[in-house]
Amino acid sequence: MAAELKRFIIGRALRTEQAAHERLSKKTALAVFSSDALSSTAYATEEILLVLAVAAAYGQAGAFRYVVPISIGIGVLLVIVATSYRQTIHAYPSGGGAYIVAKENLGTYAGLVAGASLLVDYVLTVAVSIAAGVAAITSMAQGTRYAWLDQHKVFLCLVFITFIAIANLRGVRESGSLFAAPTYAFLISFLFMIGYGLFSYYTYGGATPVPGTDEIKTAEGYSLQPLTLFLLLGAFSNGCAALTGIEAISNGVPAFKKPEATNASVTLVWMAVLLTVMFLGTSVLAYLYGVHPHASETVISQFARIVFTGSMAWFYYVVQIATALILVLAANTSFADFPRLGSLLARDRFLPRQFANRGDKLVFSNGIVILAIFASVLVIVFAGDTSRLIPLYAVGVFLSFTLSQTGMVRHWLKERAQILNKKPPKGPQEDIHFTESTVDAEPDVQLAASEERGSTFITDQVTDSSHWKKSIVINAVGAVATFTVLCVFITTKFIHGAWIVVVVIPLLVFMFRAIHDHYVGVAKQLSTEGLEDLRPIKHTVIVPISGIHRGVVGALQYAKSIAPDHVQAVYVDFDEEATAKLREKWERWGAGVKLVVLPSPYRELTRPLLRYIARLERKNENDVVTILLPEFVPARWWQHLLHNQSSLMLKGALLFKEGVIVISVPYHLKG
Amino acid sequence: MAAELKRFIIGRALRTEQAAHERLSKKTALAVFSSDALSSTAYATEEILLVLAVAAAYGQAGAFRYVVPISIGIGVLLVIVATSYRQTIHAYPSGGGAYIVAKENLGTYAGLVAGASLLVDYVLTVAVSIAAGVAAITSMAQGTRYAWLDQHKVFLCLVFITFIAIANLRGVRESGSLFAAPTYAFLISFLFMIGYGLFSYYTYGGATPVPGTDEIKTAEGYSLQPLTLFLLLGAFSNGCAALTGIEAISNGVPAFKKPEATNASVTLVWMAVLLTVMFLGTSVLAYLYGVHPHASETVISQFARIVFTGSMAWFYYVVQIATALILVLAANTSFADFPRLGSLLARDRFLPRQFANRGDKLVFSNGIVILAIFASVLVIVFAGDTSRLIPLYAVGVFLSFTLSQTGMVRHWLKERAQILNKKPPKGPQEDIHFTESTVDAEPDVQLAASEERGSTFITDQVTDSSHWKKSIVINAVGAVATFTVLCVFITTKFIHGAWIVVVVIPLLVFMFRAIHDHYVGVAKQLSTEGLEDLRPIKHTVIVPISGIHRGVVGALQYAKSIAPDHVQAVYVDFDEEATAKLREKWERWGAGVKLVVLPSPYRELTRPLLRYIARLERKNENDVVTILLPEFVPARWWQHLLHNQSSLMLKGALLFKEGVIVISVPYHLKG
Repeated sequence: MAAELKRFIIGRALRTEQAAHERLSKKTALAVFSSDALSSTAYATEEILLVLAVAAAYGQAGAFRYVVPISIGIGVLLVIVATSYRQTIHAYPSGGGAYIVAKENLGTYAGLVAGASLLVDYVLTVAVSIAAGVAAITSMAQGTRYAWLDQHKVFLCLVFITFIAIANLRGVRESGSLFAAPTYAFLISFLFMIGYGLFSYYTYGGATPVPGTDEIKTAEGYSLQPLTLFLLLGAFSNGCAALTGIEAISNGVPAFKKPEATNASVTLVWMAVLLTVMFLGTSVLAYLYGVHPHASETVISQFARIVFTGSMAWFYYVVQIATALILVLAANTSFADFPRLGSLLARDRFLPRQFANRGDKLVFSNGIVILAIFASVLVIVFAGDTSRLIPLYAVGVFLSFTLSQTGMVRHWLKERAQILNKKPPKGPQEDIHFTESTVDAEPDVQLAASEERGSTFITDQVTDSSHWKKSIVINAVGAVATFTVLCVFITTKFIHGAWIVVVVIPLLVFMFRAIHDHYVGVAKQLSTEGLEDLRPIKHTVIVPISGIHRGVVGALQYAKSIAPDHVQAVYVDFDEEATAKLREKWERWGAGVKLVVLPSPYRELTRPLLRYIARLERKNENDVVTILLPEFVPARWWQHLLHNQSSLMLKGALLFKEGVIVISVPYHLKG
Repeated sequence: MAAELKRFIIGRALRTEQAAHERLSKKTALAVFSSDALSSTAYATEEILLVLAVAAAYGQAGAFRYVVPISIGIGVLLVIVATSYRQTIHAYPSGGGAYIVAKENLGTYAGLVAGASLLVDYVLTVAVSIAAGVAAITSMAQGTRYAWLDQHKVFLCLVFITFIAIANLRGVRESGSLFAAPTYAFLISFLFMIGYGLFSYYTYGGATPVPGTDEIKTAEGYSLQPLTLFLLLGAFSNGCAALTGIEAISNGVPAFKKPEATNASVTLVWMAVLLTVMFLGTSVLAYLYGVHPHASETVISQFARIVFTGSMAWFYYVVQIATALILVLAANTSFADFPRLGSLLARDRFLPRQFANRGDKLVFSNGIVILAIFASVLVIVFAGDTSRLIPLYAVGVFLSFTLSQTGMVRHWLKERAQILNKKPPKGPQEDIHFTESTVDAEPDVQLAASEERGSTFITDQVTDSSHWKKSIVINAVGAVATFTVLCVFITTKFIHGAWIVVVVIPLLVFMFRAIHDHYVGVAKQLSTEGLEDLRPIKHTVIVPISGIHRGVVGALQYAKSIAPDHVQAVYVDFDEEATAKLREKWERWGAGVKLVVLPSPYRELTRPLLRYIARLERKNENDVVTILLPEFVPARWWQHLLHNQSSLMLKGALLFKEGVIVISVPYHLKG
């Protein structure tokens, strides 16, 4: 039943050899890797306006004009971060995620902090993107007879998350064909909207007043207040959501066509330019057209409604649908990234090894399921409201940015040292490691075909000795900038939700360590190093019986087959009469096995048996005591209720006893 | 932990020899056996008035006067039933419960119906008595600042039930000392109340009007209607609750001092007289003083308040407290009777054998717990309201009366046949039986010291040949009378709740049969009859491994010790590289064991293994295939999450496979 259901949802299993890789052209790569980054323009401007609305609602109607300078500031930050990541592409052509860069250059703890940040970030990307995508859909429904959809945001979000999770469990690939259409549709429709909006503004003299903006929505958690620097920084922090996803290309370098690094670098530049143009364009137009945040319609939707009127009205739907689609795609990227990072952490023994298992469709199924669960929880807790999720979002993103950039600075410093001294660099992560033998000794893991891991230290990029000087400066600026934003973000958003992430990340790191310590401990304990050769072991087999029946006879037969001369039957005496009868029957069926009768004045079964086993062990003649339980297995589940569960209780009592092995010899009943 | 909690609640265990019996004098026996019957006078009159109140509230103010003739009718019935039960005492001096009498004389099914009726009856006795006891307490609180107690009846009921259940689990005995004081306190205070009430009425000219009777409570489920025969019969049915518990003495004959039957017979007469006097007295006084049923105060309480005024006011509290106490005692008798009947049914294989197990305190603990649970459910469902439980009550009681009396008629007929033909009688219950051999073959039951069961066919009571004529007439009158009342009861109370019992009793009988069939089937299947002698069995031991580590090495060692020449290690190949490594290490650690490598293109573990086992079985060289699983046991529970649960999955898959025995060889991890 369960297997069939799984087959229906997941589809047929794939053979291990069927794992395949696709190389992407720059155009498709842009589509594949930038959906997350570009899609944030769908909500970043609105998030800025929401904070400014606090002052606007307080009475300072002009507060909204600050959206433009704030957006320019974010644009500058965007350029700095993108430039910084170009360095990473060249240094880690095999894929330089923050976890790897930080771990290799700053040590294991930094790597774990980056890993934790990224995991949190991926969960939030799903929650935020899906919430924003659903908002794009419900906005469309405003003013129609489907306006009630607005009341069911959470449900819609959960439907989308489930849909994406299943698609990923079925093994949807990050194929160009899937991504290209929606991403370019979004790009073109958004750029067209910005261009058409500017054209309309300067041709027809701008805005008709938006219907329904009388009720301005303000950012959750702020009381109405005048415009202060703190409020402006809060608005800035919110807008930094625009930068999320910018690191995607640097993680995916190996997927590019050759020459990988160069192509990736060019694509990154293109993405940064498009992102800046779209984000700034949206902010400027929102200001020009005087669009204000509204509880049941997004800023983009309001704006598109104003711009596209008359014969162009149909284009409003193009914009909204493209927006919803790219947001779903953005969530989908996390469904590839989270399980992949989970498997890396699992292989380094920082997460349960189940995260490294490939499912039927060769995807890391456990990671997909866990991500879907956590994202669903977030959506439920924050009622599917993008603006309530935003204060949690950028902490993880900017923490990983900072660690990644700092790691790169360290990387270049080491490279400099290498060039100056011509010595090979030393890895810093030797504080935690498995020796080959202990890893091999790991018990029930059987790793799938080993994958390339981004860890190669590339020196052939260093064409001239001065390269590192420029690189250090670029990455240092990036590190300082992202760290500053991180501090600003935590300060301004702490009480609005950032505290959750500030608490969760250390907890995750603590969990990583505890898991790692366990695995290392197990590997050490199980290592065959220093183990003596096999020698024959001595053991006694004890068969607890409650009478003579076919099950007992079968069990005695089995016991004699495994230890011909060391079998004892043990009977607990509750009733003298029954015991006497048993002794009589023993003559006929005992097969020469010694019968031990234990008294039980308190009518207990387990205690006298345990005491007898302890006595045997104290004699110290055996390496092991085997308890062989004759059990009968009823044909139907309810029939279990009709029998004393003494075997089960005995098994429970013996489960954690060393030097004792329990064997159930089942007798299968019919009917 | 759980064991300590149990010890705290239940107390120290008792040794089997400590089971003891107490012989009761007539006076103490009256206290012990009559609490159930006598206590019903606390509510029987009120239940009659509640139905009459339907007509009274309709406008026929005189309806209440019918309480007297109805009570006289019930009194006559009481005399008939008591006389009938005197016969049983003489015929079954070792205890003639309805189950035994019906089973011996009318066959197994009649016995099972009687058994089911009694079980239902006992559950209802607890629920009704506790509800009435709590009503006595909350009535006392009326007009004081504790009047809010009335809102927490259900909670109070549950507290009492839990208290009695724990007391019984601790092994409270039906000792004279426990029962005598409250029973005689109730007897005396009630008789005094009746006498003082009559005296007051005829001396001072009767009633002062009762405060608050303006809001008359009527029986649930009746719409207001004029007085009809149907309504009168409904009131009569309700009043029949007074007869419950009248059979107690006939069940407990062996507890009397010698001569048991004579003493029991005398005590029964006394009880019947007292019960009739108290019940009729209450009804007459309720009529004379014009007491009407009231929602938050019992009739007895109202009446006692009117009678005891001025300097006698304190006696009101004596009556109420004595009433509450005897009702708790009445519930307590069910806590002895239900588990005892359960154990009889379990020994005859009609209930799960767990009901026949004596607990630490030598009581049938499972029966006590089940009774407490069912009674609690009833109290919750019926909101702790006596009058809503009454329509369910008498069905089981009168059904068991009818079966018991009919059984007695049959008994005398058989005795007559015996006297006339001088032939020994034939037992009718041969349709269901265990042969000695099958019962002995029963697997995990170990009966406690066999107890005397009331089943002896006594003929020495038959002093003259005409004795049976009188006896047949008495019991036949009893059977007809109780059967008539049963029909009246079901007819008048069907829609008010009697239908529940009418449905439940056949279901119980069906369940008894299903359980019995199962046990008989198991006994047959497990019987050693026709079993051949032990012969050596052949088996192959398969050790599934995931690599080489100490756990695996230990498991191989154990495998070789139980089947030196028939061990195979099986490895599922997920990854060629890992397999090659394993083969290398196998040279060193394989100990000459054959290594089988199974391909698994879909990265499955269980399926390839199961297929391999099936292949081995098809070869048909083995009697049994033993799967030996090397397992490691983490030191802490959460660490289980960090390991693939492949052993668990394998065990699950193999659990119900015949011819396969699974052995876990644990390796205990530290820290």
